[in-house]
Amino acid sequence: MSFEAAVHAQAIELDRLSLEMCAAAGSGHPSTAMSLGHIVTVLMFHSMHWSPEQPDYPTCDRLVLSEGHAVPIVYAACAKLGVLIGDDLSDRRPMTMEDLKTLRAADSLLDGHPNPAIGFPFFDAATGSLGQGLSVAAGLGEAAKLDESPRRVFCIIGDGESREGQITEALDYIAENKLNNVLPIFNCNGWGQADRVSVQQSEEVLTRKLQAGGYTVKVIDGHAPAQIKEALDAFAANSKKPDGGPMAIVARTVKGWGSTTMTNGNWHGKPATGEALKSALGELDEERTKRTSALASTDQFTIQPPAQAPAREIRVGDLPPMRSAMKAMDMESVFHSGRLATRKAYGVALRALGQVNDRVVVLDADVSNSTFSEMFAKDPKLADRFFECKIAEQNMVSMALGMSAAGKTPFVSTFGKFLTRAYDQIEMAINSGANLKLVGSHSGCSLASDGPSQMSLPDIAWFRSFATMRDHRGNPGCYILQPSDAFAAYALTGAMAEYEGVCYMRTLRPETEFLYSEDTVFNLGGFEVLNEGRDILIVASGYMVHEANKALDGLDRAGVSATLVDLYSLPFDAEALLDIANQNNGYVVTIEDNYGASIGSAVADALAESGEGFTLNQMHIRQVPKSARTPEETLAMVGLTHRDILNTCLGLLQVQPV
Amino acid sequence: MSFEAAVHAQAIELDRLSLEMCAAAGSGHPSTAMSLGHIVTVLMFHSMHWSPEQPDYPTCDRLVLSEGHAVPIVYAACAKLGVLIGDDLSDRRPMTMEDLKTLRAADSLLDGHPNPAIGFPFFDAATGSLGQGLSVAAGLGEAAKLDESPRRVFCIIGDGESREGQITEALDYIAENKLNNVLPIFNCNGWGQADRVSVQQSEEVLTRKLQAGGYTVKVIDGHAPAQIKEALDAFAANSKKPDGGPMAIVARTVKGWGSTTMTNGNWHGKPATGEALKSALGELDEERTKRTSALASTDQFTIQPPAQAPAREIRVGDLPPMRSAMKAMDMESVFHSGRLATRKAYGVALRALGQVNDRVVVLDADVSNSTFSEMFAKDPKLADRFFECKIAEQNMVSMALGMSAAGKTPFVSTFGKFLTRAYDQIEMAINSGANLKLVGSHSGCSLASDGPSQMSLPDIAWFRSFATMRDHRGNPGCYILQPSDAFAAYALTGAMAEYEGVCYMRTLRPETEFLYSEDTVFNLGGFEVLNEGRDILIVASGYMVHEANKALDGLDRAGVSATLVDLYSLPFDAEALLDIANQNNGYVVTIEDNYGASIGSAVADALAESGEGFTLNQMHIRQVPKSARTPEETLAMVGLTHRDILNTCLGLLQVQPV
Repeated sequence: MSFEAAVHAQAIELDRLSLEMCAAAGSGHPSTAMSLGHIVTVLMFHSMHWSPEQPDYPTCDRLVLSEGHAVPIVYAACAKLGVLIGDDLSDRRPMTMEDLKTLRAADSLLDGHPNPAIGFPFFDAATGSLGQGLSVAAGLGEAAKLDESPRRVFCIIGDGESREGQITEALDYIAENKLNNVLPIFNCNGWGQADRVSVQQSEEVLTRKLQAGGYTVKVIDGHAPAQIKEALDAFAANSKKPDGGPMAIVARTVKGWGSTTMTNGNWHGKPATGEALKSALGELDEERTKRTSALASTDQFTIQPPAQAPAREIRVGDLPPMRSAMKAMDMESVFHSGRLATRKAYGVALRALGQVNDRVVVLDADVSNSTFSEMFAKDPKLADRFFECKIAEQNMVSMALGMSAAGKTPFVSTFGKFLTRAYDQIEMAINSGANLKLVGSHSGCSLASDGPSQMSLPDIAWFRSFATMRDHRGNPGCYILQPSDAFAAYALTGAMAEYEGVCYMRTLRPETEFLYSEDTVFNLGGFEVLNEGRDILIVASGYMVHEANKALDGLDRAGVSATLVDLYSLPFDAEALLDIANQNNGYVVTIEDNYGASIGSAVADALAESGEGFTLNQMHIRQVPKSARTPEETLAMVGLTHRDILNTCLGLLQVQPV
Repeated sequence: MSFEAAVHAQAIELDRLSLEMCAAAGSGHPSTAMSLGHIVTVLMFHSMHWSPEQPDYPTCDRLVLSEGHAVPIVYAACAKLGVLIGDDLSDRRPMTMEDLKTLRAADSLLDGHPNPAIGFPFFDAATGSLGQGLSVAAGLGEAAKLDESPRRVFCIIGDGESREGQITEALDYIAENKLNNVLPIFNCNGWGQADRVSVQQSEEVLTRKLQAGGYTVKVIDGHAPAQIKEALDAFAANSKKPDGGPMAIVARTVKGWGSTTMTNGNWHGKPATGEALKSALGELDEERTKRTSALASTDQFTIQPPAQAPAREIRVGDLPPMRSAMKAMDMESVFHSGRLATRKAYGVALRALGQVNDRVVVLDADVSNSTFSEMFAKDPKLADRFFECKIAEQNMVSMALGMSAAGKTPFVSTFGKFLTRAYDQIEMAINSGANLKLVGSHSGCSLASDGPSQMSLPDIAWFRSFATMRDHRGNPGCYILQPSDAFAAYALTGAMAEYEGVCYMRTLRPETEFLYSEDTVFNLGGFEVLNEGRDILIVASGYMVHEANKALDGLDRAGVSATLVDLYSLPFDAEALLDIANQNNGYVVTIEDNYGASIGSAVADALAESGEGFTLNQMHIRQVPKSARTPEETLAMVGLTHRDILNTCLGLLQVQPV
């Protein structure tokens, strides 16, 4: 039995299974799957060094299906090979052919698009929203290099999909960082969803663009087993060279290959059923008969197992106290000054953390001297764990997802505003069960003079949505953390590292006074009471905690005893906050230097659920800010100065100003 | 006086002014600005056909400064040329040199990054968040072709910036659509913020990548006036050819050109002040002396005025009734079936709208047969107003911003989930005062089988943030619209077209029953009372309106008289809703098939502000959904079936189930 015959037979079987499972599901993308039958066969049955019994073993080669809707072909291969599935160590079992019938069913582990978190460890990341997988692959590749693992990462990308700019960001990253353990494979079947792909995504132009970016490109017939094998062998050889450059495969394929029923007309995203299914299956049978006398059998193939993973000692220690961390960085005078920007405290913490926690890796997008992740990057002991992603936030976040899947604890930073670029990617990371720490600097309006194109104003509103639901571990989908001083920023950085899940921390541009000390305990889900009163509860976050603090004296002079809470976490202990609100006659004012639907609304959610008569006044930004030379002027412009806070509180209580 | 000498003299003056204005502001990016002195001089003083007195005249050439932080150099040129500024027709006046001293001040029109909405009509769009401007330019270019306008659009992009994938998306669009009236100019000064640019963004690789994408590239010394002029002349000639291909300039420049003080060390984002400023200005003076005896003078240049804009009749008519629109599309039997998916009704409305409203243009991202924007695209009378953007949502949204700036009313559609890709771009559009209509299909979890990678779940939470603030017109930053049936979808499409500002409408995948009729009036800000009761207020949106409707019978049998409100708009009339809540004893249940911080929180905001004792129970999705074969199974999985609604209501009222 020749390799060629064996591959054709197996590919055709996978194509048949794809058609059948989509018919059973009543939905799916069989024609896309059929364009990949041969490539997936050669990869999973021959070229990848892995173990179906334990696909997530650390040195196993990995396949990232960026073109997520093609997943039926991978499910079919997994079923043939008895790949391990299941979402709990005791519930894991080999996949069976019967499982294929359950595609897309509510109680099935075979989701419509790759969904590892429900129990499909063959995949590292959820895909299906296009353009993200190559970045995931790059993250896995970097982690493998860091761990000196021989793992290779294969990534299948659609041609229509390659129009997504993130694919180019990933290609640039891979080339510039010489990740010759990562192989992009472009599935050029010529069709998107609504129409043919653009000439800009044609095989010819794609090849030229790749070459221009420094790639060696293997252009192959994606249904010719010998060509597929040769290209993969070339990659394998290249991946062993210490100076091997970047390589890519451009595979000419046919959507609906092997069935004229499926290649005619636009079957994108449609399952073939009834007569059409019968025809398609019959045509595939004919194709097999034409090409081979073989029947599909896994016996024809040998899968090379992964190399033994070396035992590695991984230290996961705790942050030292902030003072000693700063002393170690010759920053003791700064410590004694009593002022430090939270973005700088983050840098200090990150470096101190990196020194005791081997899992921590750091990614930034050309602004490390603004986010202060540079403090980590410039430490010679840590430099190899810093990944400069340049001005490309989408790629950065999906790379972090890949690194998280490889067991790292990634801290990702840029301006909070620019993280907006990667919200789809962040959501896919949450869906993937990632352990991801996002840090957005220059948050709110206190950055003042750069203006609104650099300010993060609706960000809390978006992230808060994930604080209202639970991830697959049962934790809040995301914690939003807003340290108001350096001690809080330092401690919360440590708290994020100890926690398994997704967190978003906002740091500030300006220097701020110390409010706390090393003894203050900061917890995910906690809040701090800065002042205890009984007439009105003021809830503030970030920069506005300082502003609210300034209002306390004025309130005191007016005879108002105000409670001030620093709401540094969403979600927070709603019951505890309601108690405090009750101790303050039910009058609550929230203050934040961002748009609404944010912490004020989080407080409103808690109050409105209670059934009691609270009165809430939300202070937030209600216009598009513009540049101003100082934070004070910006706050005056948007009505959030301490005088405004004072007046709002007095107004709520119907107390005359003094 | 030679052209060369005149350009050097003028460029050096603009460089000086950039340094001085940033020093006055105490912040800014003078070194970046200085890399563009010569290019901006040749463009604005010579090559562009425009009118400083009326820079936004329809046939004026436009400059999009994608590299927004370089804006001081453009401000300097505008001051020299007396360009019109001001945010109101009566307050408009020529800019003066004195204005430059106000850079970044609170009451200045010179923001830290281009900000047209505050009164700087030289710019079409707010920039500063990188990577977006070339798409804006592409949108302006498409609008110009549509209007048969001779306008050319110049776009300056940073080399570090060109790492952003969106730049590649825009380049692909321009090439494939033969927009030879758009010129990307790459400012290759070799530096990003934290470090040198990557080799992938070097002049050489950038040039090769552009050529691979089909561009004719002019590589020039960006400080050599003759080379700049020659390249711009070549573009001008090419833009006159009906079949002219895409062209780009790659300009080798120097960050901090003309001053060794500024070229040494990393001055990115730092103003030179004190001694450093003195040195830099002195060095620029020396440079001028070396290169020319000329002093800067606008007399040396002639700016060609724009062509007369043809009088054009632009019809802006209203939508016909839905029935007649469907009849015209041979869909009368569908109309009589009493069921129609809101995404299909949107398609019907879009086409009917396009036929009466000449401003309407439509953009989609390879899913027009899912969003049903294809109904517009397939109408021969409208096809030239449909812009297929392929799988590249970032580019699509910023293109729409450009088209809005050119006076069009763009309707932009893709899956609601995939619009997440373009949230930064949407925010910049809101900041720009755009008239933008976003339509996200397949919203919520009712798409069922594709799984969470295709579902829009946190989207309302993000858009809602803009519903809590006001844009520059004084309107809500964004309206979020959720039609629950076809009549609502049809009518709200028309309402969006009549309104000037940003809207986001969510359409559904499944077929839904008619709830309304042609007589129902749908307003931005309105809501509909579907059932009047007095025991409990149920507030639902989208697909869940139907589910809540099914619960009414069960509630009735349990002796509960429920009010059902279809909250199809955020923001909404909070007072009116509070009245209804009061008429229902203050018991409120909200229901939505997305994550929290959404309509339930919007209701919570209103209730908590009132000071009264309402009780609110928010029903929403609290876990990551997975695939299921039917919407019913998905709703059961996430606890949002009509049975769940019934039980929650009874629980809130402490009524036993029958």
